[in-house]
Amino acid sequence: MGAKNKTAITPTREEDYAQWYQEIIKASDMAENSPVRGCMVMKPWGYAIWENIMNQMDAQFKKTGVKNAYFPLFIPLSYLEKEAEHVDGFAKECAVVTHHKLEKDANGKLVPAGELAEPLIVRPTSETIIGESMSRWTTSYRDLPILLNQWANVVRWEMRTRMFLRTSEFLWQEGHTAHATKKEAVQRTLQMLDLYADFVEERLAMPVIKGRKTVSERFPGADDTTCIEAMMQDRRALQAGTSHFLGQNFARGSDIRFQNEDGQEQYAWTTSWGTSTRMIGGMIMVHSDDDGLVVPPRIAPAHVVILPILKKGEDNTKVQESAKALKAALADKNFYGRPVEVEIDDRDIGGARGWDWVKKGIPVRVELGPRDIANNTVFMARRDKDTSHKESMDRDLFIAGITDILDSIQQTLFDRALAFQKANTFYIDARQEFYDLYENTGGARNGAFVFSHWCGSRACEEQIKKDLSVTIRCIPFDSPKEHGQCICCEKASEQRVLFAKAY
Amino acid sequence: MGAKNKTAITPTREEDYAQWYQEIIKASDMAENSPVRGCMVMKPWGYAIWENIMNQMDAQFKKTGVKNAYFPLFIPLSYLEKEAEHVDGFAKECAVVTHHKLEKDANGKLVPAGELAEPLIVRPTSETIIGESMSRWTTSYRDLPILLNQWANVVRWEMRTRMFLRTSEFLWQEGHTAHATKKEAVQRTLQMLDLYADFVEERLAMPVIKGRKTVSERFPGADDTTCIEAMMQDRRALQAGTSHFLGQNFARGSDIRFQNEDGQEQYAWTTSWGTSTRMIGGMIMVHSDDDGLVVPPRIAPAHVVILPILKKGEDNTKVQESAKALKAALADKNFYGRPVEVEIDDRDIGGARGWDWVKKGIPVRVELGPRDIANNTVFMARRDKDTSHKESMDRDLFIAGITDILDSIQQTLFDRALAFQKANTFYIDARQEFYDLYENTGGARNGAFVFSHWCGSRACEEQIKKDLSVTIRCIPFDSPKEHGQCICCEKASEQRVLFAKAY
Repeated sequence: MGAKNKTAITPTREEDYAQWYQEIIKASDMAENSPVRGCMVMKPWGYAIWENIMNQMDAQFKKTGVKNAYFPLFIPLSYLEKEAEHVDGFAKECAVVTHHKLEKDANGKLVPAGELAEPLIVRPTSETIIGESMSRWTTSYRDLPILLNQWANVVRWEMRTRMFLRTSEFLWQEGHTAHATKKEAVQRTLQMLDLYADFVEERLAMPVIKGRKTVSERFPGADDTTCIEAMMQDRRALQAGTSHFLGQNFARGSDIRFQNEDGQEQYAWTTSWGTSTRMIGGMIMVHSDDDGLVVPPRIAPAHVVILPILKKGEDNTKVQESAKALKAALADKNFYGRPVEVEIDDRDIGGARGWDWVKKGIPVRVELGPRDIANNTVFMARRDKDTSHKESMDRDLFIAGITDILDSIQQTLFDRALAFQKANTFYIDARQEFYDLYENTGGARNGAFVFSHWCGSRACEEQIKKDLSVTIRCIPFDSPKEHGQCICCEKASEQRVLFAKAY
Repeated sequence: MGAKNKTAITPTREEDYAQWYQEIIKASDMAENSPVRGCMVMKPWGYAIWENIMNQMDAQFKKTGVKNAYFPLFIPLSYLEKEAEHVDGFAKECAVVTHHKLEKDANGKLVPAGELAEPLIVRPTSETIIGESMSRWTTSYRDLPILLNQWANVVRWEMRTRMFLRTSEFLWQEGHTAHATKKEAVQRTLQMLDLYADFVEERLAMPVIKGRKTVSERFPGADDTTCIEAMMQDRRALQAGTSHFLGQNFARGSDIRFQNEDGQEQYAWTTSWGTSTRMIGGMIMVHSDDDGLVVPPRIAPAHVVILPILKKGEDNTKVQESAKALKAALADKNFYGRPVEVEIDDRDIGGARGWDWVKKGIPVRVELGPRDIANNTVFMARRDKDTSHKESMDRDLFIAGITDILDSIQQTLFDRALAFQKANTFYIDARQEFYDLYENTGGARNGAFVFSHWCGSRACEEQIKKDLSVTIRCIPFDSPKEHGQCICCEKASEQRVLFAKAY
């Protein structure tokens, strides 16, 4: 993040990270704020990334036996009352449907009419409505497990919104499973967290830390909430996915009972797990630079753009044909389940053309002019390198090696993000040092991942949150048992936890 | 539809078609009514059909240059007022969000709180909200065409609902395009209708008739509504897709203007086109029989079920292994972009096992026992044949020929539906004969497709609708110009139109 003389994005990350984020989205044409309060419009370049995530993640779900289904958008108000903790967590921020038609009033103005006997809530999450179905579907242990997922929109009313990170309506997947035993439900909870972690690391090139939330950060109504946390370039943490072990809490609320093999009636054990378009916000913040978006090749809307060098007033047929042939040859290669996807941009807009694609973050740009055709070469630039770095390559070698090039870019992005995370992760044992780090809000240490000891008390957790806006992101699974003293109260602790400022 | 001694579904189509339809959905485990008013739950077997339709249709959209995007679920009330005809068409039946949170009242009961300054409508369709975006995106003719599609849920409040055919919430795709010229917009309207017609015929095996709606049946605000109409087994028509030429009406309402090549400011020409989960209702009603659902192979959730013949108290390892090997060999074959998908059902539930799969409509059932393994054969049944028809086949030939078998079933279903449609289509020129046909509500002629002359007047159209509940489904594109007399008023007419009772 060294100073640059000229960048495509203003402000730079260093100048104003929050504004830089908005500008990246605008410059890449991914999405825009809509005039509808708190909702965004996902434009084709942004939505295609979500499509790629959906398709690839969905295939992985299915390999574990999960099947997709679809449940109603609306939840009757009474359902929310079934699970007390859950409603406290969600009732504060939801869209409430109270009428089922519009009529014209005396002035010809449209007004709500047809008041509903019971208001409906636009789903903020579907535990209660899916629980109602599972209750009807579950009689015997033979009906279990039930392994469901749905891709859907959900609504949580938000006062302060940021595209992809926090919008009133967002797109997500929510998995819901019911099991005959606690052991199986716990296993499924962890299996899905592992799937998320592998997916986010391998496809979005975002290194994550796996762990469980503290009691105060749990999903409302869960017995255990596990999560993956990634570091953004401003050194804040972003939760990129969660998987909840719900114990028998939702089964009791929704009456999901079954007869076990011994003929005894029991409540099922349930899980839920979700990821959302928030992952895209994370992807933007982990990889993009001061020249625009950087998209990991495995989820990129397109992999290669060909920029034919056309001369005004000359016959450009040969160059145009050569570009088409190159596109066809590349499209013949398979990269993570889809053909290598190639755009040809022959707009006559000068240097802005190349910059447009830099800003959109396409992994590979190729210039192709008469000299390249004569030499059987392409002039190639990779988005993981500086924009000034372009290299001439043998055309046949480029075609043969395209998937290796894409894999290499993918690997560079992951390695770079991991190195950044490691360079900004600290093990701190002294309270003053901990406070100094987070209170020093300027420069390179504006935020960090800090592994420190914690006594397990809510009081210490809240003290640190109040003082520094720093929270325990998770109790990492791979944090070794070791003796230490709580970073806040100095009482004995057996394990370090991960602290960070969070999105 | 001859009488049968015993069927898996009660009542049969002849006994009670409407109830038969509900029973098919239940017996096949596709979906169920949810306790949420007017909404259904799509269970995995039903949702997988929608997934297959989505994936295959989406690929076809993209080939025509269409890109997916996603627009807000909520539409501000004021947007609906921009296009007068449109709001009259939709305001009658929509979910209105008036509050953004819930609070506990004095009795601890949850009640809506946080009233919105402007109510929001849950989208019944997205013309107005997408128009708002297109208005911002369109400055010059260079910004056109805009070719967008979204896969989404929409809500139209319905008092009488039927699963897949009419539910308050349903899933659909809605395409929206904006063009610089009328000609281009009209071409796109017809291009998408052709795409729908080919898709429904080739993938859902449902023959359709293409045409345009009369003025009174048009989409609210459209200049022209084109449609495809299919015949169900009760001889009613179902509209399986529509494509609208919106003229400049929505562009005026949403202010979608651009400068043309001569520097003049003009309104864009827009189209919209949609298909929905209603297609699945059509698929059920066209192909299913008194033994259950029949799913065309190209959109079937799974293609083959293997039913291993297991003996109690014996070592069944060999049979189980053989079933797995057969599954793997079949999965190696590609059928319309996916592997041949195979289920193995080894439940110990006797004859109910085979019937379950008949009722689910899986295209091919295979029994596999020790004798089959010894002889290297399989005992195969096709869902397009009578349930008593099973044949022993060489195992290797079965594997080699599976995609041909599936294509043959697909073709049989289409041919059968087309023959049924033709057998129940009449050309009628005498009013009395027309009335006799539709008033004779019993037996084979309970409904039909009738091609008759129509003078073009709304009065005649409404008279017939009032008398017989028969409507003009469309003015078919391939109906030749010919002199005739209106079936209602006997005035001169130049063309026959398609009459039917409709869903």
